Amino acid sequence: MITQEDHTTYPLGDGIGFVNLVTTMGDDLTTVNSARVSYGGMSEELTERDEKLIKYLAENKHTSPFRHAFMTFQVKAPEFVARQWYKHIVGASFTAPGDAISHGWNEISGRYVEYEPQFYTPKVLREQAESSKQASKESNTGLMRTAGTLLYCYTKESYNQYQKLLDMGVAKEQARMVLPFNTYTEFYWTASLQAVAHFCALRDHEHAQHEIREYAKALDEYASETFPVSFQYLKENL
Amino acid sequence: MITQEDHTTYPLGDGIGFVNLVTTMGDDLTTVNSARVSYGGMSEELTERDEKLIKYLAENKHTSPFRHAFMTFQVKAPEFVARQWYKHIVGASFTAPGDAISHGWNEISGRYVEYEPQFYTPKVLREQAESSKQASKESNTGLMRTAGTLLYCYTKESYNQYQKLLDMGVAKEQARMVLPFNTYTEFYWTASLQAVAHFCALRDHEHAQHEIREYAKALDEYASETFPVSFQYLKENL
Amino acid sequence: MITQEDHTTYPLGDGIGFVNLVTTMGDDLTTVNSARVSYGGMSEELTERDEKLIKYLAENKHTSPFRHAFMTFQVKAPEFVARQWYKHIVGASFTAPGDAISHGWNEISGRYVEYEPQFYTPKVLREQAESSKQASKESNTGLMRTAGTLLYCYTKESYNQYQKLLDMGVAKEQARMVLPFNTYTEFYWTASLQAVAHFCALRDHEHAQHEIREYAKALDEYASETFPVSFQYLKENL
Amino acid sequence: MITQEDHTTYPLGDGIGFVNLVTTMGDDLTTVNSARVSYGGMSEELTERDEKLIKYLAENKHTSPFRHAFMTFQVKAPEFVARQWYKHIVGASFTAPGDAISHGWNEISGRYVEYEPQFYTPKVLREQAESSKQASKESNTGLMRTAGTLLYCYTKESYNQYQKLLDMGVAKEQARMVLPFNTYTEFYWTASLQAVAHFCALRDHEHAQHEIREYAKALDEYASETFPVSFQYLKENL
Repeated sequence: MITQEDHTTYPLGDGIGFVNLVTTMGDDLTTVNSARVSYGGMSEELTERDEKLIKYLAENKHTSPFRHAFMTFQVKAPEFVARQWYKHIVGASFTAPGDAISHGWNEISGRYVEYEPQFYTPKVLREQAESSKQASKESNTGLMRTAGTLLYCYTKESYNQYQKLLDMGVAKEQARMVLPFNTYTEFYWTASLQAVAHFCALRDHEHAQHEIREYAKALDEYASETFPVSFQYLKENL
Repeated sequence: MITQEDHTTYPLGDGIGFVNLVTTMGDDLTTVNSARVSYGGMSEELTERDEKLIKYLAENKHTSPFRHAFMTFQVKAPEFVARQWYKHIVGASFTAPGDAISHGWNEISGRYVEYEPQFYTPKVLREQAESSKQASKESNTGLMRTAGTLLYCYTKESYNQYQKLLDMGVAKEQARMVLPFNTYTEFYWTASLQAVAHFCALRDHEHAQHEIREYAKALDEYASETFPVSFQYLKENL
Repeated sequence: MITQEDHTTYPLGDGIGFVNLVTTMGDDLTTVNSARVSYGGMSEELTERDEKLIKYLAENKHTSPFRHAFMTFQVKAPEFVARQWYKHIVGASFTAPGDAISHGWNEISGRYVEYEPQFYTPKVLREQAESSKQASKESNTGLMRTAGTLLYCYTKESYNQYQKLLDMGVAKEQARMVLPFNTYTEFYWTASLQAVAHFCALRDHEHAQHEIREYAKALDEYASETFPVSFQYLKENL
Repeated sequence: MITQEDHTTYPLGDGIGFVNLVTTMGDDLTTVNSARVSYGGMSEELTERDEKLIKYLAENKHTSPFRHAFMTFQVKAPEFVARQWYKHIVGASFTAPGDAISHGWNEISGRYVEYEPQFYTPKVLREQAESSKQASKESNTGLMRTAGTLLYCYTKESYNQYQKLLDMGVAKEQARMVLPFNTYTEFYWTASLQAVAHFCALRDHEHAQHEIREYAKALDEYASETFPVSFQYLKENL
């Protein structure tokens, strides 16, 4: 799982990204009890009958009981991952309805902050798949390792260009136009359990880009731990 | 404050409505830390400087940091209050933008449940104000006490009509057409701190109907206790 | 189809409810062209290839292209239908994610308006089904016709009680507590094509109450006329 | 105003960005008539009394009548502008509540499309302001013209690096990591009149970055033309 590591201050290098679970609200009982508001009989502990109710709700698309549970994540991700993330939220191509609801989003701003940019530079790149324009394949060839080295060099060069423009007195907000899409950004994301399940189902998927899948897997682990029953049935029935 | 009381099983009577705080996510630090995601320096304890930041955010309408804190309420309210509540959410007349976000809503359904209806029947009604079509005024006159008694009788009559139709074999979903707007309903409501502040600001207001103000006051007490700084500044700057 | 008829001024009587299509934005090409923003090749006329694209989008849950088309309806419906409507929107039990998005809602307010209440009073009521608490069945028996007559009388009685309280000087906002759930209300509803499809799929359904199905059918006719291809595929793939 | 120009196919160069108004729904009467649903008296033509109503609604934050009017834009903007745009929508720092509602968003995807990237390369860059980390100032000095030339060269270099990686067989989705933030993207955006007003008020503002202000001004012109009264009062009362 991606976890928070001590960050080196050096602006280039791998293993910088992370997902942290900041906090959660509710558990599997939340689903049960909000669905049962009608009956007055609140559960104190999750019974087998409760699990069946959760299964029934998910299978029959009675999803509103899953919107009383929330999770907040702190995420550090390369820009090209972050943009797939919020395009997901705002309504990009692979988006189902409803995932614009119940979101908080706060992100670092390159305009304000005197932060040293950091970059995502994997040592080996992936090859283009012939089968599909959007697919890639792992292949630890010499060529792909060279490509990784080039990425590192190119990124370093971009960083130097950025510094050069700053040194000339160019406004920060304009100088950063030369930074590449593998620059890291950092954000807080709050979402309902349903929104998290939707994100994981669509982003931890063979059609999704490798990098965002890693983040989706991390979210999945966190959600499965806190909401083992609800999260499982939600994902299976999206 | 309105609190949950032991309910009498008798279907008529006052003091049945309640607001319960089921759970919350976050505290005043949530606002601070989500706003400070850019700086890396998370606060562990709320300092004076943090309070100033919260004030600054609210005053300058930087409201996104207030959308990482959530509250879930269980509410029992007469139908005419509940409908003002969700019209508020969906976008009724006194609604500002954004309050459709971050809501979970689950409500008892008169179609499914074999529940005994309960009713809101205050002993004294309020007089129509001359000043405005929408205003009312307290006036503990004999006439308004008589009106209260009439409301009680009328409600009882409606309940008997409802039972009569059920006894004839009329479908539950149709029999309940004769129930009056003071019938109680019950729901779960999950909302961001910002949405709660917005609700309180508009519904604990002299233009709001007396009954919904009581509920808004209860929400206000709960929110003020959990998020004393954030909630105060949010309300002042809506 | 339910259409707008001349309203009798008499406060009781059937055939008062209606759905009017106020306006729309977009057509089937909107779906195609917003999905094709990537390619630059905008269609001017809907081709067979465009239809296949729409089918593909709907089947693969690429729903965002369906959120650029909008419809505005003016609706007059009994209160118990209206409340199922906005509980649908806010997120009630049979609600799938996303239908809180893209809605405008404006409703007549009983607190402000000096309107004469009108009521939904079908001549024959429906019987309770044995199979399920929530089901009803048509049965034009003498008993159900009697029940219809009773509903009419009860409703008239409630209306007289309402007038009585007003005559005593009770505030309008409180007097209306005695009005029954078959009182008509009127509202403007603006929703994306996706939200309309979702409403129709869930509300024109055998599990839905007969009365709201009538409204869903009317919406369906309007939507099918304006967006024949997109609406069809959306409904089939919800 | 920014308008759609014939695009040169050359991947570098200014004047590539544009805003196009694709379609709209409603006009100033929409606001009036949805607010007046209560009264039955629909206006056919905008009267002085109608204008006063619009003013009253905006001043008193009765914003729901403004959510029945919609606009769809086709936008081509540099990545760093687009990301400020959707961070605005999802809930970034300068975001007020509610602007996540009523949005459709469809964007070109660099993973799928065989498009030639294009870039935003102004001839003169802006200087960093001393007053504030986030501010910049126009200054047509030799130094800032040199900076513009450097930006052009750096961008061209990044483009060549991108081609180099593609030629080596690196997957498209990874090769584009070296593209800079001034790469153009293109999207469809559908938003309610209220959301457009909110965007314009916050983005055509001295605190906003020069580039996004240009886009906000274009939206403003379009909205002012279609909804002259409603848009004016909305902006003045946000």
